[in-house]
Amino acid sequence: MPELRKDPIIGRWVIIATERAARPSDFKHQELISPPSREPKNCPFCEGHEYMTPPEVLAYRHPHTKPNGPGWWVRAFPNKYPALKSNLELVKRGVGVYDMMSGFGVHEVIVETPNHKATPLTMTQKDYEEVIWAYRDRIVALSKDPRIKHVIIFKNHGRQAGASLEHPHSQLIAIPVIPRTTKNELDGARIYYELRDRCIFCDIIYQELSLQERVIFENRSFVAITPYASRFPFEIWILPKEHSHRFEEIEKNQVVDLAETLKVVLSKLYLLLNDPPYNYMLHTSPVSSNHREYYHWHIEIIPRLTHVAGFEWGTGMYINPTPPEQAAKLLREQEIP
Amino acid sequence: MPELRKDPIIGRWVIIATERAARPSDFKHQELISPPSREPKNCPFCEGHEYMTPPEVLAYRHPHTKPNGPGWWVRAFPNKYPALKSNLELVKRGVGVYDMMSGFGVHEVIVETPNHKATPLTMTQKDYEEVIWAYRDRIVALSKDPRIKHVIIFKNHGRQAGASLEHPHSQLIAIPVIPRTTKNELDGARIYYELRDRCIFCDIIYQELSLQERVIFENRSFVAITPYASRFPFEIWILPKEHSHRFEEIEKNQVVDLAETLKVVLSKLYLLLNDPPYNYMLHTSPVSSNHREYYHWHIEIIPRLTHVAGFEWGTGMYINPTPPEQAAKLLREQEIP
Repeated sequence: MPELRKDPIIGRWVIIATERAARPSDFKHQELISPPSREPKNCPFCEGHEYMTPPEVLAYRHPHTKPNGPGWWVRAFPNKYPALKSNLELVKRGVGVYDMMSGFGVHEVIVETPNHKATPLTMTQKDYEEVIWAYRDRIVALSKDPRIKHVIIFKNHGRQAGASLEHPHSQLIAIPVIPRTTKNELDGARIYYELRDRCIFCDIIYQELSLQERVIFENRSFVAITPYASRFPFEIWILPKEHSHRFEEIEKNQVVDLAETLKVVLSKLYLLLNDPPYNYMLHTSPVSSNHREYYHWHIEIIPRLTHVAGFEWGTGMYINPTPPEQAAKLLREQEIP
Repeated sequence: MPELRKDPIIGRWVIIATERAARPSDFKHQELISPPSREPKNCPFCEGHEYMTPPEVLAYRHPHTKPNGPGWWVRAFPNKYPALKSNLELVKRGVGVYDMMSGFGVHEVIVETPNHKATPLTMTQKDYEEVIWAYRDRIVALSKDPRIKHVIIFKNHGRQAGASLEHPHSQLIAIPVIPRTTKNELDGARIYYELRDRCIFCDIIYQELSLQERVIFENRSFVAITPYASRFPFEIWILPKEHSHRFEEIEKNQVVDLAETLKVVLSKLYLLLNDPPYNYMLHTSPVSSNHREYYHWHIEIIPRLTHVAGFEWGTGMYINPTPPEQAAKLLREQEIP
């Protein structure tokens, strides 16, 4: 049974995934560097292989096609090897000086396209729109469970970024706690708001659009920038221009604009850095609490080009060899065929 | 000129190392997976190659041998490619909504032994004692500079853990800020102390020694445990049993005991996991401020066996497939020849 355990010093929650229990022999560290191996014919995320996954919880599919069969263009289902389990009772207790919870939670996969070899260049803007709607629909559905405090949506692309399968997919984890990073962001934004009566993210957007030094792309509703204190080379943040603390509140026109922004930005990364490994993470308000005035949802994209080592682990500081102004210029100038 | 930039939302400092400026072509991501390549004959850390490094700032060497020549057993010098520079004026200013500082700081390498191929099995306890004294002496020396707020000592071992050279070495970075992770730890420990008038680390040590579930090794002055909320498989913390917030205050007898603990614990890791990549980080009180009552210095060792991916980056939470009780049992039982 998985367990949630809280670090008593800094309040960091950890999932002890006992059912995946790994022994020393499971860590052939060579494994970390082998390329993704599943060909489309063995890929559980390809159309026609729906029987290889748990039953779907959401699919956008052609009328008259059946659940868990072909005919879909986006498909979500529980992770076959979940870090947390939804069929557990949520139990919380103290263990001496420590705090724990049962490993209750939801862990899902969202397959973004039936096309195993899709890239940002072959995905259409419409394809991205459908992925965004699936993110939104799953968050809305899971928010109804009062045990869920926060929903995280993220994408791991490439082996170095933690992807074990090549087929384009995102993941969703819904948890009964508000995690450390989210708490730090909420606190920082709240303190700034108390001081200035303004959203820190709105101020950043205003300053970046005025300066144009770190702007990569902009349309009606979104702006993509390399953040001033970028941790990683070619780190990118996508922010809605209009203040909103919850991704789920996204409007239909904004979905169109976010799809365009994602396609443009990911295509530029793909071309400039030759399909780099990357993660992206949706940062949005916890579903269980209200941070309307001061929080501002956004997407953070981090290419995985540098090592995170002792200095970063010991401090939470980062050494970035590529100034974000230079990264922004190169990304801005990168043409898309 | 390198720059320190602060994330305006969560207060995370980033070093923008402009002089190392990396362009897209520098990120052949294959590089990340190639093995360390320097043979002893080209290794700048080997004895007789002192001319390949900047001049030493500390060496423990045989009497009558000359600085920057052979005859040493531990040797420290500035990093040839420093993330921060010590010959800069410390300038601080606001940039609209952002905060920055000039990239003032110190970045040094501490070579732990002249033996290129040394392992925890071939290093003697006496060798470890000398490394610990070098850590201590460099922190004491750098604390005298009022611009330095915090000193971090860390070790990257193995390519996957960020080491670019195989020869056993540690690194030191001294910075004009207190970094995020340190601040989180200090805050957590302070809040606990205000509530209970006890050090949280002392409480953890007491509970772990009573339970013996997660203890790996114990001697007169130190205990090595797998922490209750371990982020990583086989994560290990080494803590002094006697309360002390500053590593530099270590007593001579404690140096002997810490050397024994390090040798035992690193040997067990080496044997059990077949020389895994790992980082270790010394967590100690910032040199610029006093946290005597509630902070407790310690060393965190994290084997790098799992991927850190979107979920971890988005939340600061971790998924650990190896329960620390199981890791502790295996490490306890691992014999050292």
